[in-house]
Amino acid sequence: MAPKAHAADATPATTHTLIIDTDPGADDVIALLFAMASPEQLKIQALTTVAGNVPLSKTSRNARLAREWAKRPDIAIYAGAPRPLLRTPIYAADIHGSEGITGVKVHEPSQPLAEGNAVDYLIRTLRAAPEKSVTLAMLGPETNLALALTQAPDITRGLRELVLMGGAHFNGGNITPTAEFNVFADPHAAEIVLKSGVPITMLPLDLTHKVLTSPERIAKLRGLGNQAGRTVADILDAYVQHDMQYYGLPGGPVHDATVVAYLLQPSLFKGRKVNVEVDSREGLGFGQTVVDWYGGLKKPANVNWIAEGDAQGFFDLLTQRISRLP
Amino acid sequence: MAPKAHAADATPATTHTLIIDTDPGADDVIALLFAMASPEQLKIQALTTVAGNVPLSKTSRNARLAREWAKRPDIAIYAGAPRPLLRTPIYAADIHGSEGITGVKVHEPSQPLAEGNAVDYLIRTLRAAPEKSVTLAMLGPETNLALALTQAPDITRGLRELVLMGGAHFNGGNITPTAEFNVFADPHAAEIVLKSGVPITMLPLDLTHKVLTSPERIAKLRGLGNQAGRTVADILDAYVQHDMQYYGLPGGPVHDATVVAYLLQPSLFKGRKVNVEVDSREGLGFGQTVVDWYGGLKKPANVNWIAEGDAQGFFDLLTQRISRLP
Amino acid sequence: MAPKAHAADATPATTHTLIIDTDPGADDVIALLFAMASPEQLKIQALTTVAGNVPLSKTSRNARLAREWAKRPDIAIYAGAPRPLLRTPIYAADIHGSEGITGVKVHEPSQPLAEGNAVDYLIRTLRAAPEKSVTLAMLGPETNLALALTQAPDITRGLRELVLMGGAHFNGGNITPTAEFNVFADPHAAEIVLKSGVPITMLPLDLTHKVLTSPERIAKLRGLGNQAGRTVADILDAYVQHDMQYYGLPGGPVHDATVVAYLLQPSLFKGRKVNVEVDSREGLGFGQTVVDWYGGLKKPANVNWIAEGDAQGFFDLLTQRISRLP
Amino acid sequence: MAPKAHAADATPATTHTLIIDTDPGADDVIALLFAMASPEQLKIQALTTVAGNVPLSKTSRNARLAREWAKRPDIAIYAGAPRPLLRTPIYAADIHGSEGITGVKVHEPSQPLAEGNAVDYLIRTLRAAPEKSVTLAMLGPETNLALALTQAPDITRGLRELVLMGGAHFNGGNITPTAEFNVFADPHAAEIVLKSGVPITMLPLDLTHKVLTSPERIAKLRGLGNQAGRTVADILDAYVQHDMQYYGLPGGPVHDATVVAYLLQPSLFKGRKVNVEVDSREGLGFGQTVVDWYGGLKKPANVNWIAEGDAQGFFDLLTQRISRLP
Ligand SMILES: [Ca+2]
Ligand SMILES: [Ca+2]
Ligand SMILES: [Ca+2]
Ligand SMILES: [Ca+2]
Repeated sequence: MAPKAHAADATPATTHTLIIDTDPGADDVIALLFAMASPEQLKIQALTTVAGNVPLSKTSRNARLAREWAKRPDIAIYAGAPRPLLRTPIYAADIHGSEGITGVKVHEPSQPLAEGNAVDYLIRTLRAAPEKSVTLAMLGPETNLALALTQAPDITRGLRELVLMGGAHFNGGNITPTAEFNVFADPHAAEIVLKSGVPITMLPLDLTHKVLTSPERIAKLRGLGNQAGRTVADILDAYVQHDMQYYGLPGGPVHDATVVAYLLQPSLFKGRKVNVEVDSREGLGFGQTVVDWYGGLKKPANVNWIAEGDAQGFFDLLTQRISRLP
Repeated sequence: MAPKAHAADATPATTHTLIIDTDPGADDVIALLFAMASPEQLKIQALTTVAGNVPLSKTSRNARLAREWAKRPDIAIYAGAPRPLLRTPIYAADIHGSEGITGVKVHEPSQPLAEGNAVDYLIRTLRAAPEKSVTLAMLGPETNLALALTQAPDITRGLRELVLMGGAHFNGGNITPTAEFNVFADPHAAEIVLKSGVPITMLPLDLTHKVLTSPERIAKLRGLGNQAGRTVADILDAYVQHDMQYYGLPGGPVHDATVVAYLLQPSLFKGRKVNVEVDSREGLGFGQTVVDWYGGLKKPANVNWIAEGDAQGFFDLLTQRISRLP
Repeated sequence: MAPKAHAADATPATTHTLIIDTDPGADDVIALLFAMASPEQLKIQALTTVAGNVPLSKTSRNARLAREWAKRPDIAIYAGAPRPLLRTPIYAADIHGSEGITGVKVHEPSQPLAEGNAVDYLIRTLRAAPEKSVTLAMLGPETNLALALTQAPDITRGLRELVLMGGAHFNGGNITPTAEFNVFADPHAAEIVLKSGVPITMLPLDLTHKVLTSPERIAKLRGLGNQAGRTVADILDAYVQHDMQYYGLPGGPVHDATVVAYLLQPSLFKGRKVNVEVDSREGLGFGQTVVDWYGGLKKPANVNWIAEGDAQGFFDLLTQRISRLP
Repeated sequence: MAPKAHAADATPATTHTLIIDTDPGADDVIALLFAMASPEQLKIQALTTVAGNVPLSKTSRNARLAREWAKRPDIAIYAGAPRPLLRTPIYAADIHGSEGITGVKVHEPSQPLAEGNAVDYLIRTLRAAPEKSVTLAMLGPETNLALALTQAPDITRGLRELVLMGGAHFNGGNITPTAEFNVFADPHAAEIVLKSGVPITMLPLDLTHKVLTSPERIAKLRGLGNQAGRTVADILDAYVQHDMQYYGLPGGPVHDATVVAYLLQPSLFKGRKVNVEVDSREGLGFGQTVVDWYGGLKKPANVNWIAEGDAQGFFDLLTQRISRLP
């Protein structure tokens, strides 16, 4: 697989003017380090945080920790919605720990949040942006963008694409038998986003449960010699335990980090343009993404649903980029 | 009834620091004139507009028209959400005309909207306000407040009370057999507001369909001798036709204006503290307010549901206040 | 009112070939006595029982008690469905007592149930009946007919009309804020029946909460001098307590008995042909009948919804007929 | 694989006192021939038919055709429910042809249906049967058993097991993105059956889409030298076209026939005891079986969900049994 990753490095690099909306979350932290280590491709305008894996104060603190670890004080962080639109808030502390990051010690970073709310920031920035210029990477519940879209539907004009980790079809869910956590944590927000008309790429459990850690892959990260490599390895060692046990998998997924890999090197992934809707009614299918994989419903395709990926290519790229960090 | 209204005038007046959220709408315009004619009781901080009876551009224009007619250039008007949270937008042009005001000519007022969005205005103002100091009168779909509450739940602290026109129980609905328009136009927003924990007074169809115009009541307004009286009479003459015919009523309701009367003289009304929930699932009960009038569900009372009012007292008060306008 | 009832007696009597489906239930027992006392008008083919106010074994026992009290051994009683189609069974022992009849002692009657199931009986009888010949009075949850209609949709041919006690619109519900007991106890069955295409007359809470007992009305029954009069008075004295207290009514409704009065003397009642649907989704509106009273939905009218009745005429007729019994 | 099938033949044979509920349907016909060719193991009491792939008159005719082809006049066939409980009827003529059998000519068989309804037959037979003695194979929508269970819940006593083709989890649906046809055609019936407490084995699309025809497998059937082999091959040749094209599969599934193979030789299959519920609410998940494969919901296991099978073993067994027919 090494030649493949090499070949990808040789192709003209994809670049994005990028905002990352995130609820760190262990895998979010890895995704953020991954992204912040790729400045030549990802022009990160800001991070925006949302309640999700843990409450907003902790997701915001964890985003600031990732920024500190990546030594990227130039990136502003805006806190957004502290709760979902309608549903009772849920968190995932059983997976991400009560602090939202597994395997490492957390502290209060010195650099504060930016003034103002993430929703305002999104509206202001997307309105001022050239047409179809900004990519929004979404690593948590989609509450912030849903609020912005309802208040200011015209902001879709500034968006180039949404690339989001979320949903599940053939894989089944990870928080209920049918639902993936990010969508389940705010299904109404997901519904608003999926109906927005903006081009969307989704990286669901169907993909992320095929891009799994192995002891060798984690060892390679740990052996990079820098602090970031050790941090990522420590986080992963703790984070993948639950999923390996629960699903009987040989390794664990690193969900959100696949979004960054997709932004950097889309050729690592394969998807299909399909119709995706979310079931936002409480009950058995609450938060399920319903994917018309075979096109039987004859509804318009609104999502590029990524179902396959080059797992070794992913870990090679992640490892290479993490190696650049302090 | 005149003595009764007289007596009310003699009692110590209720005063409110007030924001009015509105979707004018014929009855909204009357409510706004009514409120703007009562400056000694209602310290109006701003009007905020929302899509509802007609699209946002027209509700905002109509709010500005009402401000011009009342000669109250001191009152800022902020436009808010152009669409409901999740549902397909609906309007009520069959009742309010394509311009949103029946019976009068509309024009483009010279005074513009204030800069900024109504949702931001609500968040900023309620955060800065002393605890429990601001009353919010809500005359349309509750989208703006729902967005503000989700983005910034802490704003409940600044709110004294929500007084809103909306819902129906014993009366049945006016847009479906079970749903009242304001709630039906954004049931998810209503759900967020009803669950917010803020003290709420609702003036539903159960009340407004008992506070009806009559030829004499409209004639009294027309005969006041001022332009505002003629305008209100013209609006009402056209506006009440539909309801009188559809429901077989002897006169028509002036829904939103009852909110202003309640703010000015609550003794004109009788209610009960009850549990109210909204059915936000598409289907037969979509947008219905479910009122536990007899307390059988043993759920906490979250609404003061106004079911009775002094119709003559209402029209006396309205007429008296309209008489003060140009 | 006496002349009115007299006049009604003078009109050519309505007659019915009748099956009564019932879940006795205190008011069912009164309805059954009322019907069995009217043999010149109501040719009762059989009673069929269903779980409802109390479990099936008790509703069947109570139907047999009513038959014994009316000395009508000629009427067969078939037990039907012991549970609703899909929902968790509910009963109403708080209203009807644990035995299903208030105010009187119950015992095991000697005459047994007929062999066979009520659903089979309905299918067999309605198939064999001349076209549009059989009236089905429904005094409980509509499970039996729903099962029969699904198994044998052709049985609609033999039905003249369904006359059923159930539903609520302007009145609100009696088991939830929106639902009436009979419909709530099996909303899916009610949905099947309402969609069956058979002519339906519904006597809902909108009617029955206007046809109330008074001490005088009960005293007249008690003073008839026969056992049946004393029994009905004893049942009513106990049965109406709950409703008088809960709703603050001056007397209590005798729901199911209004169905018999309608069969005997329809001129006592006023209704409107409207579209009625039932909300069969669990949640706030579960079991609610949604009545399009003003025709706004433009759906076909499937129900004659009785909203008004001559209360004194009802009690006069009931008293007169009960006087004929032992 | 031949040795494996051989080994299975050597093990003590599983035997069943069997009723087959079916909606033929091309794959039903093959399943029926398969079962009727195995009299030493399957003591078929009767076939019961239900509306499903095509309307009831055609499913009943097709069941009689299969009986004629298998020369089993000893087996009675009872027609059951002509429509589902609540949902609008749907059929699958695009898959099974307008006559419900692909690839062969149909005619009216001379042997008629048995007198009486399938629902009555099920109630009567299961009541009279020794405890846990009767296996019910269900090859279509589960309407008949749902009706029987509601009318007579005590019949569960006579049932040994339900073995049913239906549902989908990891595979996705075949009639909507989430629903399999048999469940989708009457989700409410499926809900009743899944909650019945009877031991259930389900053979879902997760299995049947792994047990696929191939040209060789069909050729082997055709080459048996008897009429039944040619008939099954003709049916399959036509039947598998749609699925091979739509799903891009190398062969087509023979859904219902896997139920018979499971009855004859359960060692060909692997499953897991899990909790399965059906979403019976109209909307995105209508008719979906929600399978808690990893046990995260901690609800009781009500289904043995078959997810894997020995495809060659299946076709070997099918071919061997079909060879016994005329
Ligand atoms: Ca995340
Ligand atoms: Ca309004
Ligand atoms: Ca009853
Ligand atoms: Ca079948």
